[in-house]
Order: sequence, then structure tokens, then C-alpha cells
Amino acid sequence: MKIAIIGTGTVGQTFASKLTSLGHDVMMGTRNVSEKLASTAKDGYGNPPFSEWHGANKIVKLGTFAEAAAFGDIILNVTQGGNSINALKLAEAKNLKGKILIDVANPLDFSKGMPPSLLPELSNTNSLGEEIQKTFSDTKVVKALNTMWCGLMVNPNMIGGGDHTAFICGEDADAKKKVKSLMNEFGWKENNILDLGGISSARGTESVLPVWLRIWGATQNGAFNFKIVS
Amino acid sequence: MKIAIIGTGTVGQTFASKLTSLGHDVMMGTRNVSEKLASTAKDGYGNPPFSEWHGANKIVKLGTFAEAAAFGDIILNVTQGGNSINALKLAEAKNLKGKILIDVANPLDFSKGMPPSLLPELSNTNSLGEEIQKTFSDTKVVKALNTMWCGLMVNPNMIGGGDHTAFICGEDADAKKKVKSLMNEFGWKENNILDLGGISSARGTESVLPVWLRIWGATQNGAFNFKIVS
Repeated sequence: MKIAIIGTGTVGQTFASKLTSLGHDVMMGTRNVSEKLASTAKDGYGNPPFSEWHGANKIVKLGTFAEAAAFGDIILNVTQGGNSINALKLAEAKNLKGKILIDVANPLDFSKGMPPSLLPELSNTNSLGEEIQKTFSDTKVVKALNTMWCGLMVNPNMIGGGDHTAFICGEDADAKKKVKSLMNEFGWKENNILDLGGISSARGTESVLPVWLRIWGATQNGAFNFKIVS
Repeated sequence: MKIAIIGTGTVGQTFASKLTSLGHDVMMGTRNVSEKLASTAKDGYGNPPFSEWHGANKIVKLGTFAEAAAFGDIILNVTQGGNSINALKLAEAKNLKGKILIDVANPLDFSKGMPPSLLPELSNTNSLGEEIQKTFSDTKVVKALNTMWCGLMVNPNMIGGGDHTAFICGEDADAKKKVKSLMNEFGWKENNILDLGGISSARGTESVLPVWLRIWGATQNGAFNFKIVS
């Protein structure tokens, strides 16, 4: 399948590596291709520059946001939540039209100290997932996998025999079915994917971040996930 | 131990029944004792009037908020989150001074449709737990057990062999130790109680509610909890 990844950070790299290893054709989108490849600076988290990762992953195509979106049959949003709407506008609505957009981003607000809070305009009575759906009404937005560290998103079997919970929500049943199928390829078992209904449930899954960040802080281990016990 | 329960709803009744069955001496606090006992109306969730429950649980004392707080060595706040500060002011700071207050409440906002959101002034960059600690600075506030249905709070072994996670946070290490000990009496195992640090971590545990409510909606089962898998 042709998959576009909007965003080139660690989450995007993790998805790109996994998707190409599964045989998918992947193009990552960035604001400015030549600048991205020329940069030798580490990112805000101290990770090596993109060019270093890309040198070892040349099978992954790189284009502008718009070129990537035009290329993909499925689009993954892995930008920083506060930048997502702008990045997707640069990707252009016409390139997203009729397609599935998997929104993995979280609307984190780093302006008010650590751990980050949520952006007030994109939380509580709104969410990033909903805002993307409202802004791109011809796109089928599916919120998924945003409640865990990216290593687990694409490799759930890394912990607990893969027996923990991933949430999914969105307005389009067929789109959710296709996203579940992609998650199955990553190793997610059918009965560990919990459908929370329409896209407004992104208010719920994005609000996992404040407790996720504090569990991470307390345990110093990001390779954890929540399992629903009942 | 002498325990005060501020609030007489289902959560309070559940704690009162459990605590008396464990041999504790319990007084529940309410705004107006005679009105509370005289009322024959069901509560907002369709539960029987308090008097009916109390008729079968006469061992539980009933007093005003202030009488209950003065009675208790440990205070449990189980009021509706939006009313908690006012109820605790009626309980009076002098009756809470130097004591442990276990805050189980959530700052739910029912004014913007269902499922409820969180009260803007008590979420994201603040929390009910913190607001109580700021308002009653001589009280040792411990946020605990607010992330699940009340039946599980006092009986974790009802599901999954009791092997799921309860969060706790607060500024006073000794107070947290005592609350953990009470939780052990309920059946919580030591390694399933995760200390998230200071009271500001209530921002994390209270933000579980938006996703909790949606899981409840999707599964139609409130008797679930989260287990941290790593």
C-alpha cells in the first residue's frame, strides 16, 4: 500500500521503518526537503538529524507535505499536535480528499512547563482529531495509537505478549476497519483494539497523555501500555 | 480508625459499607442532616434515597459536614467535584487541620453535554486535588482511587484477580503510606498501587475520566480498570 507520513520525527521514522519492512511503499512529507536533508542538528529530544536516519533508510521516499499526501492512499499524521493543522493545510485538502488519515498526534502544550499540558483550544470540549476532521471534512479521520510510545505502536508484542489495549475512533466504519487491518500487520490482536465510536472520542484518548506522562515520569519507563481489565 | 466521609452519594455509601465491615468507625457528613433523612427522592442517577440505604446501615453515623470532619482522623472527599471546595469549606479548615484527606472526587462538568467534560478551572493546568491542597494548606491531601467505579475502589479483587492499577499522589509521604495501608485493607496489593509523586499529578489521574467515560460508553460495563503492562 502507498502510505504517506506527514512529519519526520522519531514517531514518523518508527512508522516508516516498520511499514517498509512490511513491504509498504512509504513517502515522508516535510516542509522543506532540501533543508531537512541538509540539517545536521539534533532534534529537540537529542535524537540524530533526520539525514542520518534517512541515509540508512533510503527506501523511504521524501517529499513536501503536499507531494507525500498526493502519493499516499493512507495518510499518517505524526506532526507535533500544535502544528498538525498547519502541516495538513500545506499538504492540501485536495490531496487528502476521500482518503483515510490516521491521526497519531497529541495536542501537547509545552508553553506552561513540564510535563506538558494539553492545548486549551484542542482539549476537553474539543480534540485534535475532531479539529482535523472539521477542517478536512472530505477526509476520513481515524484517531489511533496516540496513547503509547511509538515503539509499541508498531510492535505491541514487545511487552506483555502483546496483550494490552489500543483505542481507535472515527466517523467512518470502513476506514476504521482498514486501520485495524494495518494495526493487525503491526501485531495488534483484534480483541485488543477497542473502538470508542465517533471522532469526538479523541477527547478521551488524547486526555490519556497527562496521566501517561506522569506514569513515565514516576517509572522512568516509556515502554508501557494500559490494558483494560474487566 | 475514625473515618469521615464527606458526601452521601453512591460512592460515599460504598465506602461507608466497606469501612464499617472492616471494623472502622464511620461518620458521613451532609449539608443538612434532617433534610437528608427526610428526603424520599431518588438521586440524579435513579438510586434510592439515602434514608433507605441508611436504614440498612444504621451503624454509620450521620452528621453535618463539620461534625463529620471533626469526628474523623481521616477524611474522605466523595462529593461531586464541582461542589467539593464548598462542601469542605462547610466542613471547616479547623476540623481538617493536620489530618489526611483522601480526595476521590472528579471535577466533572455536566453543563456541556454527555459524557461530561472536566471543569476548565480545575483541569489541564490545575486539578481538584491541587485546589483542595491550596485551599486547605494544613491538611495532607492524597488523591487516590478516582480512576475507577466505586465498587472496584473498595473491592479490587472483583476483577482480574485484583491485578490492575490504582494511582496515588500527594505531597506527604507518610500520609500516602497510611492511605496505601487503608487500600491494602480493601484488597489492593502493594505492587498495584503506583505513586505518581506530588499532588500536581492529580492533573493526570483526573484526566483519566474522559477516556474512562468513553470506554464505559463503548463497552457498557463500568466494572473495569486499567492495568499498566510493561
